[in-house]
Amino acid sequence: MINEMNKGFASDNNSGVHPAIFKSMKNANNGHVVGYGDDPFTQKATEIFKNKFGDDTNVFFVFNGTGANVLGLSTVTQSFHSVICAETAHIQEDECGAPEKFTGCKLLPVEPVNGKITPKGIIPHLKGFDFEHHSQPRVISISQVTEMGTVYQPEEIRALANLAHENNMLLHMDGARIANAAVALDLDFKAFTKYCGVDILSFGGTKNGMMMGEAVLFFNPDLTHLTKYIRKQSMQLYSKMRFVSAQFLAYFENDLWKKTASHSNKMAQLLAEEVAKIPEVTLTEPVEANGVFAIVPQEVIKPLQEQFFFYIWNEKRSEVRWMTSWDTTEEEIFEFVELIKKLIEKKSSA
Amino acid sequence: MINEMNKGFASDNNSGVHPAIFKSMKNANNGHVVGYGDDPFTQKATEIFKNKFGDDTNVFFVFNGTGANVLGLSTVTQSFHSVICAETAHIQEDECGAPEKFTGCKLLPVEPVNGKITPKGIIPHLKGFDFEHHSQPRVISISQVTEMGTVYQPEEIRALANLAHENNMLLHMDGARIANAAVALDLDFKAFTKYCGVDILSFGGTKNGMMMGEAVLFFNPDLTHLTKYIRKQSMQLYSKMRFVSAQFLAYFENDLWKKTASHSNKMAQLLAEEVAKIPEVTLTEPVEANGVFAIVPQEVIKPLQEQFFFYIWNEKRSEVRWMTSWDTTEEEIFEFVELIKKLIEKKSSA
Amino acid sequence: MINEMNKGFASDNNSGVHPAIFKSMKNANNGHVVGYGDDPFTQKATEIFKNKFGDDTNVFFVFNGTGANVLGLSTVTQSFHSVICAETAHIQEDECGAPEKFTGCKLLPVEPVNGKITPKGIIPHLKGFDFEHHSQPRVISISQVTEMGTVYQPEEIRALANLAHENNMLLHMDGARIANAAVALDLDFKAFTKYCGVDILSFGGTKNGMMMGEAVLFFNPDLTHLTKYIRKQSMQLYSKMRFVSAQFLAYFENDLWKKTASHSNKMAQLLAEEVAKIPEVTLTEPVEANGVFAIVPQEVIKPLQEQFFFYIWNEKRSEVRWMTSWDTTEEEIFEFVELIKKLIEKKSSA
Amino acid sequence: MINEMNKGFASDNNSGVHPAIFKSMKNANNGHVVGYGDDPFTQKATEIFKNKFGDDTNVFFVFNGTGANVLGLSTVTQSFHSVICAETAHIQEDECGAPEKFTGCKLLPVEPVNGKITPKGIIPHLKGFDFEHHSQPRVISISQVTEMGTVYQPEEIRALANLAHENNMLLHMDGARIANAAVALDLDFKAFTKYCGVDILSFGGTKNGMMMGEAVLFFNPDLTHLTKYIRKQSMQLYSKMRFVSAQFLAYFENDLWKKTASHSNKMAQLLAEEVAKIPEVTLTEPVEANGVFAIVPQEVIKPLQEQFFFYIWNEKRSEVRWMTSWDTTEEEIFEFVELIKKLIEKKSSA
Repeated sequence: MINEMNKGFASDNNSGVHPAIFKSMKNANNGHVVGYGDDPFTQKATEIFKNKFGDDTNVFFVFNGTGANVLGLSTVTQSFHSVICAETAHIQEDECGAPEKFTGCKLLPVEPVNGKITPKGIIPHLKGFDFEHHSQPRVISISQVTEMGTVYQPEEIRALANLAHENNMLLHMDGARIANAAVALDLDFKAFTKYCGVDILSFGGTKNGMMMGEAVLFFNPDLTHLTKYIRKQSMQLYSKMRFVSAQFLAYFENDLWKKTASHSNKMAQLLAEEVAKIPEVTLTEPVEANGVFAIVPQEVIKPLQEQFFFYIWNEKRSEVRWMTSWDTTEEEIFEFVELIKKLIEKKSSA
Repeated sequence: MINEMNKGFASDNNSGVHPAIFKSMKNANNGHVVGYGDDPFTQKATEIFKNKFGDDTNVFFVFNGTGANVLGLSTVTQSFHSVICAETAHIQEDECGAPEKFTGCKLLPVEPVNGKITPKGIIPHLKGFDFEHHSQPRVISISQVTEMGTVYQPEEIRALANLAHENNMLLHMDGARIANAAVALDLDFKAFTKYCGVDILSFGGTKNGMMMGEAVLFFNPDLTHLTKYIRKQSMQLYSKMRFVSAQFLAYFENDLWKKTASHSNKMAQLLAEEVAKIPEVTLTEPVEANGVFAIVPQEVIKPLQEQFFFYIWNEKRSEVRWMTSWDTTEEEIFEFVELIKKLIEKKSSA
Repeated sequence: MINEMNKGFASDNNSGVHPAIFKSMKNANNGHVVGYGDDPFTQKATEIFKNKFGDDTNVFFVFNGTGANVLGLSTVTQSFHSVICAETAHIQEDECGAPEKFTGCKLLPVEPVNGKITPKGIIPHLKGFDFEHHSQPRVISISQVTEMGTVYQPEEIRALANLAHENNMLLHMDGARIANAAVALDLDFKAFTKYCGVDILSFGGTKNGMMMGEAVLFFNPDLTHLTKYIRKQSMQLYSKMRFVSAQFLAYFENDLWKKTASHSNKMAQLLAEEVAKIPEVTLTEPVEANGVFAIVPQEVIKPLQEQFFFYIWNEKRSEVRWMTSWDTTEEEIFEFVELIKKLIEKKSSA
Repeated sequence: MINEMNKGFASDNNSGVHPAIFKSMKNANNGHVVGYGDDPFTQKATEIFKNKFGDDTNVFFVFNGTGANVLGLSTVTQSFHSVICAETAHIQEDECGAPEKFTGCKLLPVEPVNGKITPKGIIPHLKGFDFEHHSQPRVISISQVTEMGTVYQPEEIRALANLAHENNMLLHMDGARIANAAVALDLDFKAFTKYCGVDILSFGGTKNGMMMGEAVLFFNPDLTHLTKYIRKQSMQLYSKMRFVSAQFLAYFENDLWKKTASHSNKMAQLLAEEVAKIPEVTLTEPVEANGVFAIVPQEVIKPLQEQFFFYIWNEKRSEVRWMTSWDTTEEEIFEFVELIKKLIEKKSSA
């Protein structure tokens, strides 16, 4: 089924490309440059990341978020390792087993609270070290923003990093929505990643106005002497890499990322505030970034979806997920909320 | 080292994006569409492929050529299979082992003649069928255009397809430069692929004016009921897929692909003709598409590379590879040839 | 550290080989036979399994339990599948990630009750079918006897099989201690495996008096046309296979397996009864086969281990695991129980 | 088809177990010992290997030859590496792709001369170092005895080791028939392995009178800190390991291995000498260990196989392989040769 609607709250990756980013790609489309990253655009984009995260940061551009996560995890694991993550983590739920397939590792899911995992949930898995029968715990992986629209506080991240490091493990962050987190925390990127002990970061932009491309950042350069081979072997080395790099140039220019993510987060707040006024709708997760989770009367879901596309999160609970994005408008939100109200009324009066 | 030159003969993927393709991407950048391929652009691009190759063609868009080859091979192999290809094949030489890593298969390299493999070279590997100690031959894989710039004739392809099918095997074609082959053969795509018995085709466009994206085509729909999972697990499922599909829309509109590939091939012919006039330069492969292989005096290579970027193919033989592309100009070629002459003269008079 | 003790309750695989099995191996050691299973001993052993489980049973001998589980799972899965099992399952806890490494699948652990999983725990994982982002549920795997020494009742197995089959999935049983289960249930093997809907069975004997070797049984021959290649590729094809097959000949002769497993189970019952009389010792799992789990005063564990080797199961809870085996004697048990009592007394009087 | 013949020249692994080895296993079958290698038998066997190869040798016992090769290669490779070996190597031809599947590496076959590879054949593959598009050459792997029954001289091994080490690579030796090589060279094991620069050795005994089990030896202990996990994950960790170790105890006692291998080699010499007298039979490889390769009249093969089992090596050339083993008798050989003569005569007179 092809969905022809061009509005909705299905996902921030249903949105298009920010015009400034498109323009930057166009500017990069000028003559020949060497492929696979040895070009001036990639050099500049790399420098920006080093400026933001420190000179000892190693940067690898890839195509997409799953590729970023897998490259980050592959670089630091052997096949007999395990990776601890939330039951709801993208690497556990939404990557069709790419991490297991490519790394060979075992993923150990931990029940999250509001999408977040804590030392309490992780510690029972920190066992069997040095015991050859047991997959060796090696990475704790968290998503920032989480898949439930919540945001880890710096001290929560630091606690996880400490736990990891005390056990000779590493902390990986899936930052598919890292800009939304930065805005929510009102911190620069480094403050809640490298400074909190994150070792590997999937830095995404596609959900915040880019066309494609992620950057995998390693804050310990000792880890990465083999990463370039892994990237190529994992089919994530882009020939015309300048067209990813050029996007990041625009993304960081005048903090474009901040404007788009701020807008997106604000729209989620607005949506949350407005639906909270409807007694039949119950928010199920704190709205901290650009995702809104809510239980709505089951009967209104389908007619609502006919005009605004979005996904049901939990069929049984009648829980839905609404994602806002950089191009969501206030009008859309009010229109959407009015429609919910109308559908609920109609249903009650039926 | 970052190369700042914006001209050269290094690779057709060092070129940029054709303006018409860029424009099509821009047109697609309008509001929200569902991600991961359930969008109208992808629907249309798929229809075009079905029009060109037949309704029973299944189409899967991916990010890049290595991804296309791996998806195609993964779909039709089990890990205990083997894949027979040229020693010079991209899957053997240039993918850092991605096929082995992802499929688990053994690759069996065959010594090619002018980049092509023949039944004679393949037949010795068609053994051990049903013998559990031996990797089971399953796929013959060829590149069209080959990595040596040559083009398989339809009857050569048919002979390989027949050999494959007689042995319950499949024929895969790496069509990273398939447009250049179509132009060279003066045939439509179907005539030398599906009609000649090709089963799986990596259909590339990036080397002929696209930004990124390939299509994996399967001519037997029975093969593909699991391909969508393999694509996702192999990190090749693009969220904003419309931006690949929109490129293909432009690529096929008014046969843009034919114009760009024709131009590229003509430029290679011109280059070949011109350098053939230089006694100190020897062409080493037939020039049938957009690649020119030549032995040049060793002393001129480095100064030549300082003004035009290209790769040494065989250091010992002093053999170089020059690739032309959709945006190569006659002026560049004449300038290049003059420089060669000048450098050779200088050397002789030294 | 090398443990020189030759008694204890560490594991049933710490025991040696039953003399009748050894004798059968010796009898097989007569001249040449074809390797890799095309020998009369393997033929006979295969026939016995077919007699016991039905002619449509396909039998593959392998070296060990992990190999058996991986071969069984590999045969029926693709890398994008998932396998649902108990958190305590051998494939989850004790195989160092071999299933993930070799199959590429995701393992989904379910919290067990007394080592067993139930539809209630499994059903939340039966989602995402046909959704390419999600690992596709394919196998439910249970251990019989469970790792907690408990035994699934036939109706429990049937319920899991029905759940699997309703979802186009398969039921795998890790039968490392299947003889102990058969004795506990007082049923023949078929009654609680094939007849209850089990599709794939790892049939072990090493923990019940054999030297090495397991049989992987498939009750649907349609599944196994590729298994022989997978066995070879997974390094589980034994050249001198007669020495595994000959063990199974003795194992089934006059129901030797039943005598050894009955004895082992009885010894566990005796041990459980005797320690239950000690107020300071608490049994933590039902004793249904040959494993006894108990909480004992922490101070007695170490001195106890100095005379009888066994493993601590849960350090925090001071829970230990005692396994009996085919050669455990009543004397050992009484000696052991007396020692526990003595150590507890000593401790109280200290 | 089950072959009931108990004599023949099919393979040295069609033979049984030497009585002294069987007896040692029986002696080990006494009470409980800790599983998975922490037992006194394994300790002693390890000490013997350390005595023979030096204290810095790390020893890992596994089930079989394929397992040994894969464990050795996995320990020293990443998935983007390549392994260079003979086209006829066991890892290339006879392991159903286990090395590719488990390591992810590319195998690069080199055309051998009399089963052996030389620097000349290898050097063309030593390219693409540090180039991320190319599988990185990491291991040269040779078989000693080769699959063609020939034996590398120490200086040949040293040359390969030097070549490997100069390129930051390692030398692996598949020693499935290492005892036959030691006897052929009249050298102790160390002299043509560790002393010649071999880094990893699969030390086999199954083809020389053992029941099962190989030892993987690493002469650089820095390589092996992860090997124990790889062994477990590769399904090669044997629970009742004493029954492999006990075999090695007998194997080395009074140089049993030397007696059995000497006998086997002598029998091959005798066979070669005798068939060499038959004008219609042509030896095709030097007979240096326990394998004889010969071209025989096609018509005699089948009737010959009806009385003595053996394999056709090359159907087209009418080339057969005859392997002798520790239990081959002179009588068998003379009987066999007479039969060949008789069949040839019969054929000529027909």
